[in-house]
Amino acid sequence: MAKTAKPVSPLAPKGGFPALPVIKGASFAAVQAGVRYANRRDVMLVSLAPGTTVAGAFTRSTTRAGCIRDCQAKLGLPVPKGTGAAIIVNSGNSNAFTGKVGDKAVAAVTGSVAKALGLPVSRVFSSSTGVIGEPLPHDRITAKVPDLVAALAEESIAWAAEAIMTTDTFPKGASAIVKGDGGVIHIAGIAKGSGMIAPDMATMLVYIFTDAKIPASTLQRMLERNVGDTFNAITVDSDTSTSDALLLCATGQSAAAPVKGAVAKAFEAALRGIMMSLAHQVVRDGEGATKFVEVRVTGAQTPDDAHRVAMSIANSPLVKTAVAGQDPNWGRIVAAIGKSGAVADRDRLTIRFGDIVVARNGWRAPAYREDDGAAYMKQDELVIAVDLGLGRAKRTVWTCDLTARYIEINADYRS
Amino acid sequence: MAKTAKPVSPLAPKGGFPALPVIKGASFAAVQAGVRYANRRDVMLVSLAPGTTVAGAFTRSTTRAGCIRDCQAKLGLPVPKGTGAAIIVNSGNSNAFTGKVGDKAVAAVTGSVAKALGLPVSRVFSSSTGVIGEPLPHDRITAKVPDLVAALAEESIAWAAEAIMTTDTFPKGASAIVKGDGGVIHIAGIAKGSGMIAPDMATMLVYIFTDAKIPASTLQRMLERNVGDTFNAITVDSDTSTSDALLLCATGQSAAAPVKGAVAKAFEAALRGIMMSLAHQVVRDGEGATKFVEVRVTGAQTPDDAHRVAMSIANSPLVKTAVAGQDPNWGRIVAAIGKSGAVADRDRLTIRFGDIVVARNGWRAPAYREDDGAAYMKQDELVIAVDLGLGRAKRTVWTCDLTARYIEINADYRS
Repeated sequence: MAKTAKPVSPLAPKGGFPALPVIKGASFAAVQAGVRYANRRDVMLVSLAPGTTVAGAFTRSTTRAGCIRDCQAKLGLPVPKGTGAAIIVNSGNSNAFTGKVGDKAVAAVTGSVAKALGLPVSRVFSSSTGVIGEPLPHDRITAKVPDLVAALAEESIAWAAEAIMTTDTFPKGASAIVKGDGGVIHIAGIAKGSGMIAPDMATMLVYIFTDAKIPASTLQRMLERNVGDTFNAITVDSDTSTSDALLLCATGQSAAAPVKGAVAKAFEAALRGIMMSLAHQVVRDGEGATKFVEVRVTGAQTPDDAHRVAMSIANSPLVKTAVAGQDPNWGRIVAAIGKSGAVADRDRLTIRFGDIVVARNGWRAPAYREDDGAAYMKQDELVIAVDLGLGRAKRTVWTCDLTARYIEINADYRS
Repeated sequence: MAKTAKPVSPLAPKGGFPALPVIKGASFAAVQAGVRYANRRDVMLVSLAPGTTVAGAFTRSTTRAGCIRDCQAKLGLPVPKGTGAAIIVNSGNSNAFTGKVGDKAVAAVTGSVAKALGLPVSRVFSSSTGVIGEPLPHDRITAKVPDLVAALAEESIAWAAEAIMTTDTFPKGASAIVKGDGGVIHIAGIAKGSGMIAPDMATMLVYIFTDAKIPASTLQRMLERNVGDTFNAITVDSDTSTSDALLLCATGQSAAAPVKGAVAKAFEAALRGIMMSLAHQVVRDGEGATKFVEVRVTGAQTPDDAHRVAMSIANSPLVKTAVAGQDPNWGRIVAAIGKSGAVADRDRLTIRFGDIVVARNGWRAPAYREDDGAAYMKQDELVIAVDLGLGRAKRTVWTCDLTARYIEINADYRS
């Protein structure tokens, strides 16, 4: 079904989709397959050079889609040296909760790509995003595999970023360049996601590519060290998806020596930056979002308490609607802290909007003026900071506001 | 600030506020005190005859209001035989997160009532509902205590039900008559609540009165046995309040003998019925609600799993917006089950809309037709039933849909 043009989120990064560096050994193609949407590219293929290493992180939903289970199983298998890899992704249909028929669709799609690219099927990963519970018309995808293969080009990553969009209003990309030993290392990532976004992970699809030489096990550890503070620290609507996937692929085609020591540190920092940027872009494209909100919790007794309080605030419909209404209604933050289940003491709480101290020692700060809070809330980007005053644990998460547009988008998503 | 007239919820019980029986020994009064709202009654007083027993249940928020802590402390104290009791409630300001100043406001208000009615202050309970974090203008309330006392009448319970409303669109009441030994026992309850509704308990204020002769300890046990399946089984927006309170008071003025044996069973069943009715009325007045939704989970391994799945569905913004849009988007129910944290097996799930089997054995039921689901969703009252197929634990909860009106109400609650 054709979707009408949507206005781009007011929180979208200025300047549009960034110019991403070419990642040697990673080629992209995107085509119109008519899985669900008409008149737009909805299937993308990535072909990865021999020797590419792959790491992944996925939704923990117990009703996760067949393609997720398939990726997880394949990442656990040994890889013969010098084998390439591929990723095929469709939007419009998530192939989730489609039972054994869905599993067969995954096998058909990945098998078709494996055959066309001369890869073992164990090295073809797939993702599907869109409506849950409807059989995936996989014939429409496999019919386009020859066109996809013919169109593969290292310069086409932007088309891939567009092909994976569903309710997204802008394609998401981020990149970095790291100085390696004897050459430059490039990293480029793309992502989609704007609704059904909550850890772990979110309805997010994220693909990050680098030409670094780096073993899969190192790549996996770097991914796991950084996913908690980035993709697992964002929420749009508290609804975790069945289909979240993040794949991180290293082609090893850079002239630089294998990543280690100081270069590994710099590489990981750059990777983290890209993960953070893409995670923030997902929140900035939150369905109906008009405000980008950072929730900083400090002074908790335990990291789990800090996380609970941060997510309780970030997911509270009453906090999110107050933000939408530019209402400095900090009482709702107090209520969200109270319901979180974390240890909290009314008389030790401090609440700030940016640098403005709103509440302290169990009630409104004497110097706080409602007009200051109201002026602050007019900004596009807000910081809500809570200090629990009990310990040293902390957690920062990001969310957006909850507007009538979110309801509009989701009350007729399938119509 | 004056509120403009609101349209009554389309889900309100037909026929308006019910005719509640007089409860001998319970007198009511309500006045305009201008706590926040103008031109409406916003403070109510209940005076309870000597010998009245009282039981209570309260929010478990760690940031609960001073009046809640005060009620909890008072209910733990021994009561001299033949002492009466009183309840004073204001709307417009919750006196929550107002620190020691808030505690003093509670003492001032309850002390004033105690003096006027000749009661020990330990037998005067209070509730406050409304905006959080603003000092309660308690002078406006204490100034009206003489008027309240002068107006006390056993027939005025309907005015009390109106005085405790905030964003409610209709006052809530329910009653029952039970045949006792040697006389009739009456029970009448009133409630408020429509937003910030989630266990435990919800922004709900509930006051139930009976003329039964029944000790406080028995009353408390009956309350605790039934609160889990009634008030703690509803959610409007997942936001638990700082101020929830339920007080159950027995004046002992019925001609019937003290409640015991078969009468106790009948009494508890009637009490449960009133609690369920009031809980459902709160959901029916959910902010912006157009659908009343029962979520029935069966076949879970544990009661906790059943509860998690039921609440995950009932609180999912994506499920609730689909219901608002009359979209039989059962895939979102699958996703809500998956994110709940409960043990679930895709291939054993069954999902029904009312009697329509939508999904079974891990995917769409062969006989299910989307048109049937779409027709079902047009009803005002819906049942979403999930069988996990793993065990015998079950849980039923109630919620409403999430509409643009919820956003409107909450984006400018304080303006």
